[in-house]
Amino acid sequence: MSRGSTAFITLALLTSLGAISSEASAQQAQQPKHPAVERVMASADYRQAMASFDSGHDRIVEENLKLQQIPAPLRQEQRKAEAFAGMLRAQGLADVSIDPEGNVLAVRKGTGNGEMVAIVSHLDTVFDMDTDLTPKRDGTKINAPGIADNSRGLAAILAMTRAMDAAGIKHRHDILIVGSVGEEGLGDLRGVKYLLRQGQYKDQIKTFITFDGLYPDQVMNTAAGSKRYEVRYKGPGGHSYRAFGTVNPMYPLGAAMQGLAGIEVPKGTTHSVGVIGGGTSVNSIPTEAWMLVDMRSASPEDLGALEKRFLDIVSKAAEAENATRSTKSGSITAVTELVGDRPSGKTSEDQPIVGVAVAAVAAHGWTPKLVSASTDANVPISMGIPTVTIASGIGDRQHSLDEFLDVEKSGSVRQLGMALTTLLALADMTE
Amino acid sequence: MSRGSTAFITLALLTSLGAISSEASAQQAQQPKHPAVERVMASADYRQAMASFDSGHDRIVEENLKLQQIPAPLRQEQRKAEAFAGMLRAQGLADVSIDPEGNVLAVRKGTGNGEMVAIVSHLDTVFDMDTDLTPKRDGTKINAPGIADNSRGLAAILAMTRAMDAAGIKHRHDILIVGSVGEEGLGDLRGVKYLLRQGQYKDQIKTFITFDGLYPDQVMNTAAGSKRYEVRYKGPGGHSYRAFGTVNPMYPLGAAMQGLAGIEVPKGTTHSVGVIGGGTSVNSIPTEAWMLVDMRSASPEDLGALEKRFLDIVSKAAEAENATRSTKSGSITAVTELVGDRPSGKTSEDQPIVGVAVAAVAAHGWTPKLVSASTDANVPISMGIPTVTIASGIGDRQHSLDEFLDVEKSGSVRQLGMALTTLLALADMTE
Repeated sequence: MSRGSTAFITLALLTSLGAISSEASAQQAQQPKHPAVERVMASADYRQAMASFDSGHDRIVEENLKLQQIPAPLRQEQRKAEAFAGMLRAQGLADVSIDPEGNVLAVRKGTGNGEMVAIVSHLDTVFDMDTDLTPKRDGTKINAPGIADNSRGLAAILAMTRAMDAAGIKHRHDILIVGSVGEEGLGDLRGVKYLLRQGQYKDQIKTFITFDGLYPDQVMNTAAGSKRYEVRYKGPGGHSYRAFGTVNPMYPLGAAMQGLAGIEVPKGTTHSVGVIGGGTSVNSIPTEAWMLVDMRSASPEDLGALEKRFLDIVSKAAEAENATRSTKSGSITAVTELVGDRPSGKTSEDQPIVGVAVAAVAAHGWTPKLVSASTDANVPISMGIPTVTIASGIGDRQHSLDEFLDVEKSGSVRQLGMALTTLLALADMTE
Repeated sequence: MSRGSTAFITLALLTSLGAISSEASAQQAQQPKHPAVERVMASADYRQAMASFDSGHDRIVEENLKLQQIPAPLRQEQRKAEAFAGMLRAQGLADVSIDPEGNVLAVRKGTGNGEMVAIVSHLDTVFDMDTDLTPKRDGTKINAPGIADNSRGLAAILAMTRAMDAAGIKHRHDILIVGSVGEEGLGDLRGVKYLLRQGQYKDQIKTFITFDGLYPDQVMNTAAGSKRYEVRYKGPGGHSYRAFGTVNPMYPLGAAMQGLAGIEVPKGTTHSVGVIGGGTSVNSIPTEAWMLVDMRSASPEDLGALEKRFLDIVSKAAEAENATRSTKSGSITAVTELVGDRPSGKTSEDQPIVGVAVAAVAAHGWTPKLVSASTDANVPISMGIPTVTIASGIGDRQHSLDEFLDVEKSGSVRQLGMALTTLLALADMTE
């Protein structure tokens, strides 16, 4: 997942949240409340579930590691999906299946009319098949690619279902558990797009929670949109010495990367070159050079402006190379392909779901922040389904090799409590 | 191989060649002569060898295609070496072997004291294992990766030994046939370096001819030196959105490519970015971005100046990135490694070997040009061994996917005649 860093957080004035209790005293002003959250947390069942997190914490960490050990790069989530489905079945969940897109689905039945709250963690990671997945422990921190983003989310779902079972918790709405595919990068949210556009439960899902991200104080209600491009410069190629002076696709690529690097963006708007490639030998002018570029913004206007400027840089770089070097054997062409297009949008701060999540965060000891992100939540948000993304754990450095999860027990259990509270308040826990 | 293009040819004043016949008339001024060349070409044996090229031309093309069909990328020449060794054995050559570095060796014994003339064509190509090697015919042109550079050179050696056998040609010096490894790119001339520094015949090789290049008018007596670098920018990496503002190794790489692109070089000096890579997913700031760079010059001074300027650009790009974006999670480091270092030098125009090659080119109907190149010849030239590189065939576009060889019979036979004449004049053909 991707969240707004503190550098570009949309920090809402919490007192403006319609859902916050109006009885808030001066002291409580920093502690927004919500009646549904208070009701859940006051119940004996909830306390029993929390005790289950505490006594079963080692198992939660074990399951997290077991899932993290299974590589799940782009379009290669199947093994991890099967493992997760197996773990859900072992827990006795109903209707465990893998849908045609590859998402793992399971249902915890409610007592109501079949309206669903979807809880979603993604299966895929940004790491390729060759990445060393060996975990390293450093005190309470576990360092390992994918340990937090998002094997922790999957482990949290397993832990919550087990805790609900242990406490005999019931709820009116059905809870739809989803292990989604294609959340990262070029997956382009394919799992959730399928789920909500074609999946068997698409008409029943009325509330959507994704567990993703490592800062438990953050409630992500704004979906940062993204545009991702593959840019490919093609040219005639040739011998690096013999054909010197011929247009070289590496040079406009370098110029375009350099041009992108120099674009200053408003807060909340970002750019990155993520992957590059091209060429077969040091002594050949290559026939191709390419890059994958990620541009994001919570503001469609800012994203559009960045996209326009970037595409202009891309084509000007090709023109400049053709003007600078020989095109006798052929000229440079720039081929741009939109490989990712994530919708943006916002679940309004007035929606009950945001009030519930904010109150649950506050009730568990953090100062809530409303932030923007780009996650599976982008799809339901863009469709108007009330949606939040809340943390799946506590950690940092996701998408880098030194990604870590902090499994210090009291913080970890508190975070699981916050997630369970949000879920039960929205699924309408019954006494 | 790599030759000087017409843009930077060192065109010697042919009349200044010490080896050129002093009897040259006004008409003959454009047709430099050499007594050894005239003696070879006047012999009945030579005419019989030429008739063998003519009658056996289809077989020469077949063998060329057979060799071209075997992929031989960097350090993967073994299959092609075995095939070439088998073809030499089938031709009845003595002492056919593959040396510890992977070079194919064979000897055509002379009548003298064992002094050797080495004739060398390289086995390797610039194309990787996945390249489609299917040949396409277009009239007399055969289009296929590696068809000319340098399967033609290997086929030409086979054709010459067969023609010498057919004509019963004898020579005083031993002819050492070499199918060399590692001529291209990062092979860094490892085959010929081994041959001349450690190989079993290193002390016997007194004359060195490489067949490489596709312009039969070119006699390459100057070795363009090269410096090849792998440049790797390393950084902390991170999430493309969450960690936006963090240093991104792609950006200094782009800046360095852009900087290299902008360096104007004196004639005969060249630069190219040949291969790039880095990154694992579109939504991660990568931890590494790298490129392979080729810089060459016939002038050690110009090459040194280019190298210095390039390395300066490389380190300044890292500094600029560290100054522009956040280094909170770590800063960008530039790691440069010299992965290729080809010696330069020159076989003087006064040396008989240059006069012989120039006269052989002229006698076969071309106007000789002395040019610089970077081939297997760099090694013997830098060691002071009299060396030339002459064409292995007629074609163009080597190192690109549209590389082609022209097998129009009269031109092809003429080129083989030029090569055989040069060889026999230098190996001291006996009557």
